[in-house]
Amino acid sequence: MALGGAARVREISAVRYFDHNATHPLSAAARTAWLAAVARFPANPSSPHRWGARAEAALHDARLAVAAWLDAPPLDIVWTSGATEAANMLMHSAARQGSGEAWVSAIEHPCVIAAARRWFGNRVRQIPATPEGVVDLNWLDHRIRRAHPDLVAIMAANNETGVLQPWPAALAWCREHGVAFACDAAQWIGRLPAQGLGGADYVFGCAHKFGGPLGVGFMKAPGTFHPLLVGGPQEDGRRAGTENVAGILAMRAAWEEREQAMREGAVMRLEPHRDAFIGQLKERLPGGAILGEGCPRLWNTVAALMPPVVDCRRRWVVQLDRLGFAVSTGSACASGKEQPSHVLRAMGVPDATADRVLRFSAGWETGAADWQALLDAVLTAAREMAR
Amino acid sequence: MALGGAARVREISAVRYFDHNATHPLSAAARTAWLAAVARFPANPSSPHRWGARAEAALHDARLAVAAWLDAPPLDIVWTSGATEAANMLMHSAARQGSGEAWVSAIEHPCVIAAARRWFGNRVRQIPATPEGVVDLNWLDHRIRRAHPDLVAIMAANNETGVLQPWPAALAWCREHGVAFACDAAQWIGRLPAQGLGGADYVFGCAHKFGGPLGVGFMKAPGTFHPLLVGGPQEDGRRAGTENVAGILAMRAAWEEREQAMREGAVMRLEPHRDAFIGQLKERLPGGAILGEGCPRLWNTVAALMPPVVDCRRRWVVQLDRLGFAVSTGSACASGKEQPSHVLRAMGVPDATADRVLRFSAGWETGAADWQALLDAVLTAAREMAR
Repeated sequence: MALGGAARVREISAVRYFDHNATHPLSAAARTAWLAAVARFPANPSSPHRWGARAEAALHDARLAVAAWLDAPPLDIVWTSGATEAANMLMHSAARQGSGEAWVSAIEHPCVIAAARRWFGNRVRQIPATPEGVVDLNWLDHRIRRAHPDLVAIMAANNETGVLQPWPAALAWCREHGVAFACDAAQWIGRLPAQGLGGADYVFGCAHKFGGPLGVGFMKAPGTFHPLLVGGPQEDGRRAGTENVAGILAMRAAWEEREQAMREGAVMRLEPHRDAFIGQLKERLPGGAILGEGCPRLWNTVAALMPPVVDCRRRWVVQLDRLGFAVSTGSACASGKEQPSHVLRAMGVPDATADRVLRFSAGWETGAADWQALLDAVLTAAREMAR
Repeated sequence: MALGGAARVREISAVRYFDHNATHPLSAAARTAWLAAVARFPANPSSPHRWGARAEAALHDARLAVAAWLDAPPLDIVWTSGATEAANMLMHSAARQGSGEAWVSAIEHPCVIAAARRWFGNRVRQIPATPEGVVDLNWLDHRIRRAHPDLVAIMAANNETGVLQPWPAALAWCREHGVAFACDAAQWIGRLPAQGLGGADYVFGCAHKFGGPLGVGFMKAPGTFHPLLVGGPQEDGRRAGTENVAGILAMRAAWEEREQAMREGAVMRLEPHRDAFIGQLKERLPGGAILGEGCPRLWNTVAALMPPVVDCRRRWVVQLDRLGFAVSTGSACASGKEQPSHVLRAMGVPDATADRVLRFSAGWETGAADWQALLDAVLTAAREMAR
């Protein structure tokens, strides 16, 4: 394997990583749980012997824990390979439940938008967002007089801006009007308390956004569900395929640690570091702006419109990379192609301006010193690029 | 977590595990590679900084390795969450390529049969199997004069019987007749050399059958491919969702170790243990039979029709479980429901007889002493149940 030597390992461990919205490195708790699981539950949960039954029981325990955090019935929890699979599963199932429309917010993750288009076809309508990056619930209220959708899909927190979405109000609105509600909680879960999200008809997230492994996630699905992946009878027929036992138990361990930390006030401790960075950035590098600054946002995310030092955010990324900082131009899923961000477009940001937007996203291990170092690096990069 | 104490761990490590066709415990090589990967490649492969690029490069290296083992073009390799997802992906895509039929063998895994039915609907025909459990290629030759399918799906090795299928001949036949060929190689990969399987239009497998982690697999897909999971641009648009980097690198490590061991003659060393077990079983517990005994089979698998000591294979499983042996009644995917096996039915085994079939499937660490211990346990169980 082309893993390189010890020098490369040191180098990577020295990086100041500000791309946690793309993926959060594995937490120690998840690593420990994964190693314990591969040793203790090596069998297939569907196997008829006691070692299979033990793996199945461990999955059941994890289901109870996840259901409790979400406040959802345990049997509604389905394990998935991640958020993208969950989004595709839910749109496939919801589109087959009826012949009505899906109203999908304009700032959803590409997997939600693409899956809605794939399965609802021309039955998809876009719910607009405000210039601050908040889904416009007034639009819903206005439209319901003329049409009645089968499904409304609004994410819990936006991956590019960190802006929290009014999912509790959307959920209440959907309840009132008898509309199914789907919530992509991939950026919310493990960063803010999950409590209440289980009230949505469909809610999903993935482990790797909060320190669990890649390749595993969950979905809360309603009782009547049309599976997208068919085959074996796993997950009560809602998702065929042998369950990723170690991945699920590692996700549970990471999530448990986050919920515990939040109960102990972690968000209140971490958010000021982000705010101090923003305050300093605005003062020492004027001419920019923070997207969604007037709104409640994830404590870890800063979507910054950089001052026009250079005309291309890609150069910022490269310059900060040289200085040892991993930052993003937005969604990792979208940034590979470097197309204009659909989220920024929905917020009314012109493409030329959007090309100055950088995303800094911290993790659970990011401290005040990391944010300070990032600020210094941004100022250094600005000086170097201005030459 | 409800993991239990040290006593339970000792107990599990003491089990004689003969259910590797359901899942193979994680190999040391895969464990090491997984731990190395989560430490060295913590970033999202789609991220725009160098740590993202390194993860992407590691995936590319793995793609080259897998392509070389299969003898397939590297860009045709798509990472999946496992074999079930791959089967669903391929049937979805193949069904959209044309309006012709899918000819699917009667002994395929439930995920292949279900996915074919799901996407081809009434365009599915079943290719029969012989009483020995071999797909009947003469049936194909006979039928091609009257109809021309879009797709033929024949597995490489059967999960319940271990009988090797004539995939090289089927592949040649499909080439000759201009028919796409799909091969479920989940039980073959990592047990027999993969070389040549890449000649199939679609071939897939999963890591957990040969010592890689659960929740990861691969598929060789042709250039024109309709994705089932849509969203981000990963995998050249063929499978959206952040790639399971550590899982893929662990799969690669386990697979590499198996291919190396096979080059060094491991199969020739391991197969005699299985054969010795069969010889002793037939001699010391007469009245049974070995399914597919006259055919080339996987070196690790014994599908045994047990003598009519008891009328229910479930009792065998329980009795052997008590003695510390994990064995299966057949496919783990099917055995949860304890329905009659479609594989045995396709072989013409009456349901009442099928209820006496047990599957013993060894792994890469199973030695002669384990097989001997299994024999002793089977004889003990037979004595106890005959009382």
